[in-house]
Amino acid sequence: MQKRKIAVVITARPSYSRVKTVLAAIEEHSGLELQLIVAASALLERYGSAVNYIEKDGFTIAAKVFNVLEGENLTAAAKTTGIGILELSTVFDNLKPDIVVTVADRFETMATAIAASYMNIPLAHIQGGEVTGNIDEKVRHAITKLADYHFVASENAKYRVLKLGENPDFVFNTGCPSIDIASEIKKIKILNFNPYQKYGGVGAQPDLENGYLIVMQHPVTTEYQDSRKHIEETLEAIKGLNLPTLWFWPNVDAGADGTSTGIRSFREKNKIKNVHFFKNMEGSDFLVLLNNAIGLIGNSSVGIRECAYLGVPVVNIGSRQNRRDRGGNVTDVAYDKNEISSAIKVILKNGKCTPSSIYGGGKSGNTIADLLATLPLQFHKTISY
Amino acid sequence: MQKRKIAVVITARPSYSRVKTVLAAIEEHSGLELQLIVAASALLERYGSAVNYIEKDGFTIAAKVFNVLEGENLTAAAKTTGIGILELSTVFDNLKPDIVVTVADRFETMATAIAASYMNIPLAHIQGGEVTGNIDEKVRHAITKLADYHFVASENAKYRVLKLGENPDFVFNTGCPSIDIASEIKKIKILNFNPYQKYGGVGAQPDLENGYLIVMQHPVTTEYQDSRKHIEETLEAIKGLNLPTLWFWPNVDAGADGTSTGIRSFREKNKIKNVHFFKNMEGSDFLVLLNNAIGLIGNSSVGIRECAYLGVPVVNIGSRQNRRDRGGNVTDVAYDKNEISSAIKVILKNGKCTPSSIYGGGKSGNTIADLLATLPLQFHKTISY
Amino acid sequence: MQKRKIAVVITARPSYSRVKTVLAAIEEHSGLELQLIVAASALLERYGSAVNYIEKDGFTIAAKVFNVLEGENLTAAAKTTGIGILELSTVFDNLKPDIVVTVADRFETMATAIAASYMNIPLAHIQGGEVTGNIDEKVRHAITKLADYHFVASENAKYRVLKLGENPDFVFNTGCPSIDIASEIKKIKILNFNPYQKYGGVGAQPDLENGYLIVMQHPVTTEYQDSRKHIEETLEAIKGLNLPTLWFWPNVDAGADGTSTGIRSFREKNKIKNVHFFKNMEGSDFLVLLNNAIGLIGNSSVGIRECAYLGVPVVNIGSRQNRRDRGGNVTDVAYDKNEISSAIKVILKNGKCTPSSIYGGGKSGNTIADLLATLPLQFHKTISY
Amino acid sequence: MQKRKIAVVITARPSYSRVKTVLAAIEEHSGLELQLIVAASALLERYGSAVNYIEKDGFTIAAKVFNVLEGENLTAAAKTTGIGILELSTVFDNLKPDIVVTVADRFETMATAIAASYMNIPLAHIQGGEVTGNIDEKVRHAITKLADYHFVASENAKYRVLKLGENPDFVFNTGCPSIDIASEIKKIKILNFNPYQKYGGVGAQPDLENGYLIVMQHPVTTEYQDSRKHIEETLEAIKGLNLPTLWFWPNVDAGADGTSTGIRSFREKNKIKNVHFFKNMEGSDFLVLLNNAIGLIGNSSVGIRECAYLGVPVVNIGSRQNRRDRGGNVTDVAYDKNEISSAIKVILKNGKCTPSSIYGGGKSGNTIADLLATLPLQFHKTISY
Repeated sequence: MQKRKIAVVITARPSYSRVKTVLAAIEEHSGLELQLIVAASALLERYGSAVNYIEKDGFTIAAKVFNVLEGENLTAAAKTTGIGILELSTVFDNLKPDIVVTVADRFETMATAIAASYMNIPLAHIQGGEVTGNIDEKVRHAITKLADYHFVASENAKYRVLKLGENPDFVFNTGCPSIDIASEIKKIKILNFNPYQKYGGVGAQPDLENGYLIVMQHPVTTEYQDSRKHIEETLEAIKGLNLPTLWFWPNVDAGADGTSTGIRSFREKNKIKNVHFFKNMEGSDFLVLLNNAIGLIGNSSVGIRECAYLGVPVVNIGSRQNRRDRGGNVTDVAYDKNEISSAIKVILKNGKCTPSSIYGGGKSGNTIADLLATLPLQFHKTISY
Repeated sequence: MQKRKIAVVITARPSYSRVKTVLAAIEEHSGLELQLIVAASALLERYGSAVNYIEKDGFTIAAKVFNVLEGENLTAAAKTTGIGILELSTVFDNLKPDIVVTVADRFETMATAIAASYMNIPLAHIQGGEVTGNIDEKVRHAITKLADYHFVASENAKYRVLKLGENPDFVFNTGCPSIDIASEIKKIKILNFNPYQKYGGVGAQPDLENGYLIVMQHPVTTEYQDSRKHIEETLEAIKGLNLPTLWFWPNVDAGADGTSTGIRSFREKNKIKNVHFFKNMEGSDFLVLLNNAIGLIGNSSVGIRECAYLGVPVVNIGSRQNRRDRGGNVTDVAYDKNEISSAIKVILKNGKCTPSSIYGGGKSGNTIADLLATLPLQFHKTISY
Repeated sequence: MQKRKIAVVITARPSYSRVKTVLAAIEEHSGLELQLIVAASALLERYGSAVNYIEKDGFTIAAKVFNVLEGENLTAAAKTTGIGILELSTVFDNLKPDIVVTVADRFETMATAIAASYMNIPLAHIQGGEVTGNIDEKVRHAITKLADYHFVASENAKYRVLKLGENPDFVFNTGCPSIDIASEIKKIKILNFNPYQKYGGVGAQPDLENGYLIVMQHPVTTEYQDSRKHIEETLEAIKGLNLPTLWFWPNVDAGADGTSTGIRSFREKNKIKNVHFFKNMEGSDFLVLLNNAIGLIGNSSVGIRECAYLGVPVVNIGSRQNRRDRGGNVTDVAYDKNEISSAIKVILKNGKCTPSSIYGGGKSGNTIADLLATLPLQFHKTISY
Repeated sequence: MQKRKIAVVITARPSYSRVKTVLAAIEEHSGLELQLIVAASALLERYGSAVNYIEKDGFTIAAKVFNVLEGENLTAAAKTTGIGILELSTVFDNLKPDIVVTVADRFETMATAIAASYMNIPLAHIQGGEVTGNIDEKVRHAITKLADYHFVASENAKYRVLKLGENPDFVFNTGCPSIDIASEIKKIKILNFNPYQKYGGVGAQPDLENGYLIVMQHPVTTEYQDSRKHIEETLEAIKGLNLPTLWFWPNVDAGADGTSTGIRSFREKNKIKNVHFFKNMEGSDFLVLLNNAIGLIGNSSVGIRECAYLGVPVVNIGSRQNRRDRGGNVTDVAYDKNEISSAIKVILKNGKCTPSSIYGGGKSGNTIADLLATLPLQFHKTISY
């Protein structure tokens, strides 16, 4: 029997980390052939060159698509998506996949969704149905309406995708594949590598023996002009606390330059003694780091998802993760240095949280691969009401 | 007070006909400034050059965007959309509209929706919430999830947009603006122009005094390889009946060439005595023609919408209007010459139908303009559940 | 030793016919691997679907690129080129050719030239150095300045490329590969197939036993608004003569619709008794047709090139072939029905002309393949003065 | 009489500096209307936001075009050009200029040239005919073959454009407009502003009273992988000399990241005491800085052009300005810290050079504006041999 060709489009470093176990499960599945397409910021050095990790992890890349338009405004996000459609439609035309898989809700994932659905290729969407309240949410639900199969990460997400009128036969709570990796990592109870040696980066090299904070704060697209102000509140809070801190640069977005510029400029003007800055890190090393951290500060979805499973305390800043389902490990605060600072102090006192499996229990990759191998191939749908 | 700038993007001839009264109402509104953008097939001769009618009707065009990629496959539809995003984002960047309006559900309207929503410009969608069951439906509901204001055409449509999780404060049953024109035309009880003289076209020139049929059949995108076979069934039925018939060429779509080729080839091989072919016609003339016709044959939404209001009998062929709300004037048939033929014979016997106002009562244009002038400007939304 | 990968980009039917022997020679060469890319109008039905002939001839296609933007204006030509660059750069990125080959001077060949030269891939240009005086000439000489190797078709062309400052080590008069096929065909002294049966087409089916004319007239891009008027002069002349005539539709260009519309409209209004219209024909069949014709009427480069070698008389209309080297077989006339008509009458009287080898002697394909296998790979050049 | 509409496309900071007096002269000319289009890196912060200076200088911008595709490879340069064509053709379609002006030879200027020439808009090229030996040269001469009017900067350049087969009636040695500004600046014999206060930047703030060096080194596109190594040689030389130095970041190019990364990384690892880094500076301030400097180090064309007129000594590194006409002020060296260092020492000893007017005498802007107002509008040309 002929293997089904499954094209997965990876457009950013965090998306790769999230679905790595799905890629591996597709590759190992006897009924499937993986067509891995790497595009957008996943190819760019200033966003962490996910492509290097992908190659290092041994995946074969079927096509690369450069489509990030440079610019400090939202126009660039629109154009990046337009170029993505132009290019991906040619790629799909040549690879002729049986199913296309798109991941999550970044703006440029819409390019994958449109190219596939317009070309009558069945489209699978990983991680629909969640709620955040920004442009990502418009994108996410719009992709749900274009997609034919839905692999969601929680019961709440499933409920929402069904309410959106999707056919229950094609909506599955598979859990989030990012938890698959976390379930392995959870067993590693010490920091088993030296992050400074392994990943370089810039700034101080604080001693990590007695605990450390991790900061990861992305710009929020609907508020992009405020990006710089927002990041400065966090910078002030971290500077004030003077705890050992590992800080990760943001990923690409319309406001990325605001955030990046904010950090760079703050560093030029201030001596920040206890903070080291990383551009990126292999996903598994990052999870080890997280598993052994005092807490995560910022607005990364890792705080909502993996940290729930690992029981790592999180200070979640601002609106980016609004209304996303969360475990007891998350404290929400505003873009305010004092709020941020106070919340961190509470974390320091309380220590680790009780783990939760609201985002799945570690078998997501295999579950999704099995579905991709067996679901009926179809791209014709109608709303259920 | 400064006028709100309202950018309306017209991408096809039927869309223009549908929203003409909205354009006029925006232009006349003291609080609004119209920025009319004409794009895609609306600019092309082989799809009826809507742009000529727009200019003739006295509207000022703020920008023209050529973005139709030529091709006999679905890839071209995807690429047309990608190019549309690239171009429209530049146009919006230069025109700086306060609100962007997109119409209906053709594939390339997605370009308008993505460019506007990604650029944080409030997006109004005319005619969401309807159900048809093909790619148009994916597009339509996806646009609903990107749009901030919804001007729907029927109560059923409103119900669906609300179920999709939209904020009730921004969902309005305005009726369909196409009915505004129909309400004027309805009074014209005779064919007050000579269509052959006014619009040229090719083929026989049957006498229209004792009634005539109108045919308008578009390709269906999810079935595009069957387009030729489908159109041939209709051609056979019409040939067999030998009634005075006015036939309109289809608009652009992935399968357009299948339909067009089918018609052209059929004409080369057969003598079709009683049929005249038109490329296009001004919307108001077309409605007069319709109002005085025995019936409409094909799969045009005009049959569902304007004909309901006018009480014109319709033989609706195939899946294109599936599940769209319809009045008592519509008889649904398969792509089958015998079914088509029988249904037409019933129409001949029964004559005009009882009018229905399920798609509005003739004030849609003004209602929409008033809403555009007064709704709070916002582009931030979240699903209601 | 590793084979050199040679990417050849075919963008139109006539280009394919011209370089078919080059493709075959590359494929058969032990030191070369052919990467055939089919793009632009070569993929489209309304321009003769060159892609079908390519596949039928047994060539493997490495990538297809749809990039023709639809439109009745010159903007579309520019946009088609822009999209071509976007797409071809991705294709080159994935195929990693050692040399890229571009053919002749159609506007969209510039996309190949720019993508390759900007990506530091050595670029070979077939058929530079000729003179015609329209936009093609701007394109042709600009490509010469981007190209690293020049395979020209005549001594005059070589002289010009050298005067343009190119390095003599990389300029070769290989003759025109189209002559390779003509040299085989020349031996076929009778019409050995029935063109009506084999190629369909529309119109009358004149008896070809006692000779026939062939018409092939393309729009001229710098005069595109006049295309319709120009074609009408030819139509009038041909109608007046009432000789058995085989007419070929034009290929894609900004004014294509003017020419096509002109022909279609003329046919609707006039009875043209002795003329049959073809959309396209396999190159070799066309040459057999030509070799046995009374003469060729129009502005095709076939008249200048293959007809010189075959000794077929040509009435060359208008400016399209201006200043291109020509043999004694060509009579130049204006867009004027009387001039056209008179020139045809002279041809009828005089019969076949003396053959000339100004465009090569039939070994071009192999010569070019050998050069591609042995020339030093380099993309760095500077003007010679 | 109606004013001629002159569209000038500015795609980079140095191009703006170069043609600023042309823009002013067009704006002031009674027979001309300026349509200023700002595109590509001229809009981006990380390349110095030329757009801000343009606006500050009081020019009205008719359209902005974001078209820089992000990437660390040459593919991005090709794609940027493709997107530029797509976008500029729409802009030209809407602005309907009588003449389009393109400047110099950066890769993306080809987009302007192709869009204009394909749309039959007369194209003027400023600064053709020069020789450098890299990809810029391919671009420059290709643009010459697309352009209708040539405004060259030296007698040698004029000679070459004529040899390229251009019509002598349309080739003018106008001198380089950059010299117009230099001729004003030359009178300012002291550094009349504090560059640290006015332009920020990072690094040490060396005392400038007793002379200073200026460094400006761009990546060379055909050698882009070596960019980092090349810049390090210069960094080592400058570090070794320990003279007051003002260093300017490079502009965008395929290798920009190599150069930028090289500088950034060197700074992280080394204490460079006497060097200050600027992102950019207003053209006139930069010239004042230059006029009062000990010398210019790097590969900027300013060293060849303005410095000749000003008599400022230049150490020109590597191949970027190869074969460009130069005055006696230039010393050419390899990418070698020792050669660079020695050449700077010679400069220190010898002081200012004798000025030369090989690139014009200061009236270029007005000369060009007058030509634009009076040259016959035409886009049809043929090679002169």
